[in-house]
Amino acid sequence: MAGRFVDQIIKKRDGGELTDEEIRDMIDRYMAGDIPDYQMSSMLMAIYYSGMSDREITTLTLAMRDSGEQVDLSSIPGMKVDKHSTGGVGDKTTLIIGPIVAACGIPVAKMSGRGLGFTGGTVDKWESIPGYQTDMSMESFFELVRKHGISLVGQSGDLAPADKALYAMRDVTGTVESIPLIASSIMSKKLAAGADKIVLDVTVGNGAFMQDLDRAKELAKRMVAIGDGAGRETVAMLTDMNEPLGHAIGNNLEVKEAIEMLHGRGPEDLQEICYALAGMMISLASGADGEAAAPAGADPRLKDKLSYEQGIELAKEKIADGSAWEKFKEVVASQGGDISYVEDPSKFPVAPCYCELKAESDGYIGWIDTMGFGLAAGRLGAGRATKEDVIDPSAGIVLHKKIGDEVHVGDVIMTIYGGSPEQPGKPRYVIEENTQGVAVDLKKCFRIDKEKPTEQPRIYEIIR
Amino acid sequence: MAGRFVDQIIKKRDGGELTDEEIRDMIDRYMAGDIPDYQMSSMLMAIYYSGMSDREITTLTLAMRDSGEQVDLSSIPGMKVDKHSTGGVGDKTTLIIGPIVAACGIPVAKMSGRGLGFTGGTVDKWESIPGYQTDMSMESFFELVRKHGISLVGQSGDLAPADKALYAMRDVTGTVESIPLIASSIMSKKLAAGADKIVLDVTVGNGAFMQDLDRAKELAKRMVAIGDGAGRETVAMLTDMNEPLGHAIGNNLEVKEAIEMLHGRGPEDLQEICYALAGMMISLASGADGEAAAPAGADPRLKDKLSYEQGIELAKEKIADGSAWEKFKEVVASQGGDISYVEDPSKFPVAPCYCELKAESDGYIGWIDTMGFGLAAGRLGAGRATKEDVIDPSAGIVLHKKIGDEVHVGDVIMTIYGGSPEQPGKPRYVIEENTQGVAVDLKKCFRIDKEKPTEQPRIYEIIR
Repeated sequence: MAGRFVDQIIKKRDGGELTDEEIRDMIDRYMAGDIPDYQMSSMLMAIYYSGMSDREITTLTLAMRDSGEQVDLSSIPGMKVDKHSTGGVGDKTTLIIGPIVAACGIPVAKMSGRGLGFTGGTVDKWESIPGYQTDMSMESFFELVRKHGISLVGQSGDLAPADKALYAMRDVTGTVESIPLIASSIMSKKLAAGADKIVLDVTVGNGAFMQDLDRAKELAKRMVAIGDGAGRETVAMLTDMNEPLGHAIGNNLEVKEAIEMLHGRGPEDLQEICYALAGMMISLASGADGEAAAPAGADPRLKDKLSYEQGIELAKEKIADGSAWEKFKEVVASQGGDISYVEDPSKFPVAPCYCELKAESDGYIGWIDTMGFGLAAGRLGAGRATKEDVIDPSAGIVLHKKIGDEVHVGDVIMTIYGGSPEQPGKPRYVIEENTQGVAVDLKKCFRIDKEKPTEQPRIYEIIR
Repeated sequence: MAGRFVDQIIKKRDGGELTDEEIRDMIDRYMAGDIPDYQMSSMLMAIYYSGMSDREITTLTLAMRDSGEQVDLSSIPGMKVDKHSTGGVGDKTTLIIGPIVAACGIPVAKMSGRGLGFTGGTVDKWESIPGYQTDMSMESFFELVRKHGISLVGQSGDLAPADKALYAMRDVTGTVESIPLIASSIMSKKLAAGADKIVLDVTVGNGAFMQDLDRAKELAKRMVAIGDGAGRETVAMLTDMNEPLGHAIGNNLEVKEAIEMLHGRGPEDLQEICYALAGMMISLASGADGEAAAPAGADPRLKDKLSYEQGIELAKEKIADGSAWEKFKEVVASQGGDISYVEDPSKFPVAPCYCELKAESDGYIGWIDTMGFGLAAGRLGAGRATKEDVIDPSAGIVLHKKIGDEVHVGDVIMTIYGGSPEQPGKPRYVIEENTQGVAVDLKKCFRIDKEKPTEQPRIYEIIR
């Protein structure tokens, strides 16, 4: 298409809808270097203000997906269901849900990101198990899925490079917080990753990217519309992130909590979220026709269409009968991890410096600054501020009391771990109570109220 | 100031006010190459949507003014009043007002722009007088003002280069139509040009940049606030541009009309606008104290403060007594122009190709597409599409009938001039009635109605 790109900027600025051709052309020309950054950043700001229709967002998403490699999972028999979270603190669900779903016989071919931000990504959590390999060729990855029904690796390949380029631009031009741009960014990568169906965990609250339920719902609806528009059934679950998920924040601390959960001893909120997400994935994977039907060895109940509630029941069963735990060990072993650690989690390194924060009044935990916990964990060494930072797998926080829990003076609210001398990298903050630093910050990250707070839902809504 | 510019983009995006330091820093760092274009374009779009307060606009204007040279007119005795129009079709007011004001003894040191667009700028109009020099050193310019009380030249020097840079960016990023950005762009150049007081002719209508009275009024108010904020008294007059000003459009055609007007025979609308603008300039220049008081030889009535109406009367007097016409000839002669042309305008070259468009029904001229006339004049050779284009000084249109005029079948509505073989440059459209081209386009640029249209004001409002 010929024409001056400024005309499309003005069209969008004035609230118009871009045609499919204009959107595809914009991405193609931008990636070819024919549209300069200063025009693209202006367009992004116009989109920030004027929004985009579902058709525009879907076209933008597909154009970004088509800008790079796409994973073709069709050689793996069965219905492939992916799960994606918009992010939170203490989110170790992938480590638990993957084995549950795989234990049902549903193929799990999951590529996770490495965390850049306050806490480590799922890849960093896996890598806290000594020996576990997340870097792998696409062929080895497929081979593992075919053999074990599951593989959980780091993202490889050049998926949606246009999204990467646009995201870098958004980051420096004040256009990150645009729902159409967030939705298309997430979905372009998910669609490139090749799953047949997608379950989205859209977190809401003071530890999430979306702090407001209405905006989170809007994001969820837009992503579901994109998935459906691209022919991939997509369901979004709006889940609470007004406190960390479970007790543990930090890489090997979260692995240990995931192992607890796989033994049926997980914290209540973590259980509820994991069963809901796994149940939805099982429901979506069930009752498939023809080639997508449950492969040999799968739970026979998957042949029929299962409801969300039936999916949850099946997920609980896979925890209760130990099959999810067995599948977890199989994953770890198949990817080179030392299963002696997961079988005896006391072997995991423990940070040499730690301190406890105790209640200074009686009452109930009434409020938690979830993002504050995430940032604190990052400063302790659980995350990386730059790509070069080395993560301390033992650093983090264990939060013993959660919102609504009754506490008395002297009760330990949390244990803070850090300063591991076993890790190379930069010197870490040395924890010492009542000094400047992480512990002091964390004291401001919770509040003890006299009244017990009213209970909030953990799952606000399901959008499909 | 340290800090990430993206934080200021986000602040503005979210409707915040930038501090004076942030604005000055933005311009300084942009001009130093420390803020990349893609961030500036994003900021410009955020300003487009979020607007700016009068304080922000004034600071932005002063920062742009301060980015380059500033003309210091203080060595010229008297109160210097500048006039600026936001643009229109057939606007030859500078050629008339300059001599009127100078004939009162008010120093006129006016730098005009060269037109890039449909019709020529004031400089192109002057240059259609053989010999007239508009390119001049600042010293020669000052010398002429001191000697003759007037000089009308082309803009020289590097005035407000930050505005030039921002305008270039706005042009390609869809951020031209922002009132704060338009206001600061105009005023940065006006303030750099050094006048003590400023009269703004803010045109409104289908031949103006502002087509809507409310937006024009908003622009006028913002520019007046900037001028006042910078300590330069500024008055804006909102004038009509729903038809070309006067009859002539095109460079030497307009000079000939200006000469008619200087002999007291100008078209009614041109007279009204010229007297109003000149009257306001005279009023602003009058009654000055101390060094700024009217210099020796000036009309003694200027010693007292004159009202706008008194200013208009004085302007009319300077036409009636021939002194403005004498001043016009003095300007032309002093800048090298051949006054035999202005004394005998029949000497000006006439385009060899012309045609007349005639009324095909009885009635009244009810509507004129003013911008259409401007574009047609440009195609005939009166303007330039690129800097390299050569202007044909004889090309243009003479519009014999204006809105409200009664017409009968066969009356000549307009005469179209073009195709001059005397000029180098690209081949021009050869005018031939009833063929594709300018004449055909111009037939669509007016309408004959049965009913006489209601009369519209030529001056909507004065903002001070």
